[in-house]
Amino acid sequence: MNRSIIKYVLGHVLKIESLLMLLPCAVSIFYGEKVGIYYLCVAAVCFGLSWLMIRKKPQNKVFYLKEGCISTALSWIMMSFFGCLPFWLSREIPSFTDAMFETVSGFTTTGASILSEVESLSHAALFWRSFTHWIGGMGVLVFILAVIPLSSGASNMNLMKAESPGPSVGKLVPKIKATARLLYLIYLGLTVLEFILLLFGRMKVFDAMCTAFGTAGTGGFGFRNDSFASFSPYIQWVVTVFMILFGVNFNAYYYILYRQFKKALTMEEVRYYFIIILLAIAVIMANILDMTAGIFDALTQASFQVASVITTTGFSTADFNMWPSLSKTVLVMIMFVGACAGSTGGGIKVSRFVILFKSMGKELNSYIHPKSIQKIKIDKKPVEHEVVRATNAFIVAYLIVFVVSLIIVALEGRDLITTFTSVVATINNIGPGLELVGPAGNFGFFSCPSKIVLMFDMLAGRLELFPMLLLFYPGAWKDMLTKKKEKAVKSE
Amino acid sequence: MNRSIIKYVLGHVLKIESLLMLLPCAVSIFYGEKVGIYYLCVAAVCFGLSWLMIRKKPQNKVFYLKEGCISTALSWIMMSFFGCLPFWLSREIPSFTDAMFETVSGFTTTGASILSEVESLSHAALFWRSFTHWIGGMGVLVFILAVIPLSSGASNMNLMKAESPGPSVGKLVPKIKATARLLYLIYLGLTVLEFILLLFGRMKVFDAMCTAFGTAGTGGFGFRNDSFASFSPYIQWVVTVFMILFGVNFNAYYYILYRQFKKALTMEEVRYYFIIILLAIAVIMANILDMTAGIFDALTQASFQVASVITTTGFSTADFNMWPSLSKTVLVMIMFVGACAGSTGGGIKVSRFVILFKSMGKELNSYIHPKSIQKIKIDKKPVEHEVVRATNAFIVAYLIVFVVSLIIVALEGRDLITTFTSVVATINNIGPGLELVGPAGNFGFFSCPSKIVLMFDMLAGRLELFPMLLLFYPGAWKDMLTKKKEKAVKSE
Repeated sequence: MNRSIIKYVLGHVLKIESLLMLLPCAVSIFYGEKVGIYYLCVAAVCFGLSWLMIRKKPQNKVFYLKEGCISTALSWIMMSFFGCLPFWLSREIPSFTDAMFETVSGFTTTGASILSEVESLSHAALFWRSFTHWIGGMGVLVFILAVIPLSSGASNMNLMKAESPGPSVGKLVPKIKATARLLYLIYLGLTVLEFILLLFGRMKVFDAMCTAFGTAGTGGFGFRNDSFASFSPYIQWVVTVFMILFGVNFNAYYYILYRQFKKALTMEEVRYYFIIILLAIAVIMANILDMTAGIFDALTQASFQVASVITTTGFSTADFNMWPSLSKTVLVMIMFVGACAGSTGGGIKVSRFVILFKSMGKELNSYIHPKSIQKIKIDKKPVEHEVVRATNAFIVAYLIVFVVSLIIVALEGRDLITTFTSVVATINNIGPGLELVGPAGNFGFFSCPSKIVLMFDMLAGRLELFPMLLLFYPGAWKDMLTKKKEKAVKSE
Repeated sequence: MNRSIIKYVLGHVLKIESLLMLLPCAVSIFYGEKVGIYYLCVAAVCFGLSWLMIRKKPQNKVFYLKEGCISTALSWIMMSFFGCLPFWLSREIPSFTDAMFETVSGFTTTGASILSEVESLSHAALFWRSFTHWIGGMGVLVFILAVIPLSSGASNMNLMKAESPGPSVGKLVPKIKATARLLYLIYLGLTVLEFILLLFGRMKVFDAMCTAFGTAGTGGFGFRNDSFASFSPYIQWVVTVFMILFGVNFNAYYYILYRQFKKALTMEEVRYYFIIILLAIAVIMANILDMTAGIFDALTQASFQVASVITTTGFSTADFNMWPSLSKTVLVMIMFVGACAGSTGGGIKVSRFVILFKSMGKELNSYIHPKSIQKIKIDKKPVEHEVVRATNAFIVAYLIVFVVSLIIVALEGRDLITTFTSVVATINNIGPGLELVGPAGNFGFFSCPSKIVLMFDMLAGRLELFPMLLLFYPGAWKDMLTKKKEKAVKSE
């Protein structure tokens, strides 16, 4: 294990976090709130710590997938730890576990809240909550790759692979660094565009900013107690459209930027993503028609909710806990599907389902033509055997984490639907579930052990399981326990 | 497609069914019931039809996996169709859909009933209901392999592969025919043993017979309205032990028969099966302790219910719908696990989970040692890549069938837990679920379309998905549509 490089990466993450924390500090000055001082203090401490960690450059800049995964997992835990301190120190969230839960939920773009009442929070806290979504959406390590000189090639790829969502990581342009920059550029551009469109709908600047952060990161923290129910249909539609856009594989935007429209339009994953969305909207719209004020209202509510759930954002305009069973079943299903790979959304990802469906088709075919050999194709390119295997391993790991979490949370003795959907909503980074954790409820009532499990699920969901699982896999720490010294520079 | 061989196999299945139907007929004569006449008539019709189908021996006796799957799927549908006629004709179950549901539930060893009241049924009907479990438990085609000369080798293997549960079919002895006979011998022996032990507990002969059939096939139709709650603890324990025994991979019994005790004891799947059972009993026992009459009562109830659910039998001694959430969660989980491969139980099977867990371990390891190549091992033998792939394909197919069924059944608008557990209980061939379909409820209230979906799930669950899915896969019927004549004998 190359510990010095992990320390170096963590130091950079901490430095960036300390700089980002100056933003809520500025917000508090603008609104004349005193809580800004806490953000400033924590930022100063982070900066000091990061200086200590970066001071000594590591001799060996190469690192492997293992180091990539471990430093990603540790970065996210560390970010959440320091990120929650202002909430806790300012007593806006008096319990440390709750503050940590809220921050993990923010960075992982889940949006599950322990607060029953958000309108009394300070502007700085509301801003920081929403801003953590924006940071977590694209990922901090991707940001580091964009701005900091580490080493080149394979090492960077290992960092990117550990943090990026989806079964395989594509480089848009030959250099990782340029890819990371391009991703952040698209991300920023779309966020600003949504912000401007929201201002046109006469939203307040602060509200528009928080909304844009939440949508872009597919987070879902609201800043009103009823989430989005009290906003105008125009604003609801803008948010709906942008939620869907942020759930699209960012490669599509790259193609559009470079005028390769045909390539963007023929991306299989994106097409299936839109087909699933349209089907789900149609079913739910028909199902809730007599509960709403007419076809347009039903369409607005169904679209908003489907977009919010499939992209794992988690905003709400209606308490879908009250919807009929069919609609709830469809919503729970698309909770698992999630958005496209290479987007800011969570869930299992559409592309994984495409791979799984195609491998089942292949299996059925092998019953008819036992001797034929065919490879699964996506976008007319054959899918590597490794990717198929990793996808299957992902599904298994997902089921295991899911089941173990379910058993621990079930110890609370809540009703089955609350138990089930609280795990679904956290592991898929959605936010609200059904019953007690529905849009009108919150996660505050859970006991401390359950909250820890749900925090783990949020992190595991955001980092696509393996980086978090590696932390608990004895094999990963073996060489540290046996004290094998790794002073010598490893040769690739 | 070799249609003549499929017709020939179906003919033999029908002949056997017609002979088996003489048994309930005898029961009705013994108890002086008039309904026996319906069984006799249907048996006669079946016999006549089968004679027409078998009369002409097929020229080409070779058949492939495709024909094996198709004839298995069609056999089971046909058996259920003719098997339900006596219920319907005698008006003991007035609706044809209900009668079919009950019979499918019987043959697939599910035990989900549409009857709210079983004590008023005739002895012949009760006998036939339980006897269908016994037939379905080991499978009719396995029986055919044991007694009828088809062709040799690969063709028989294809039939056996289509009907036997588990990821891979092992031949106990070199010849398939001998293997099939040995399996039926063990099956019969254990059933008789249980029957005798039940008689020692002063159960009536008829009740002991029905119980033994239900336990052996891991079915679950009761003959009293409260299932097993009113029987003595001795009888409950006998049933518990035999449910667990019938969920063990039958290879273990083969080893024991041939005094290879060490081999039997070291079978990994069987060991994990017992570990899961013990863990589940311990958790549930602790959880329900204060609802019961003491430790022994809690142990009896927990053991009976865990054995009943993991082996997918579905008998009940307590209304576990009333148990706390944790116990219900554990029960729902072991509903998915199911029994061992090569047993009469349903579910996903322990061995599949063992393979899945090990492949996840392998994946985690590949993060640490990216270049190492290792094969998963079970019982110290490497698992073929094909088996791992088929296991993954199975899980995917399972999820797809599950999700599609869930959506269709959700159209009914029942509560989520009823919807969810009715699909879980049918696809895993268990019987009772929770809420409306709990041990105290039944499936009678579902609409006709839902019942058809649930029937499909029972058959798909029993035949391990692919044979039933092939029926709906256009590729399987292609050569019949294009009218390619297959007169020439295919050469392997």
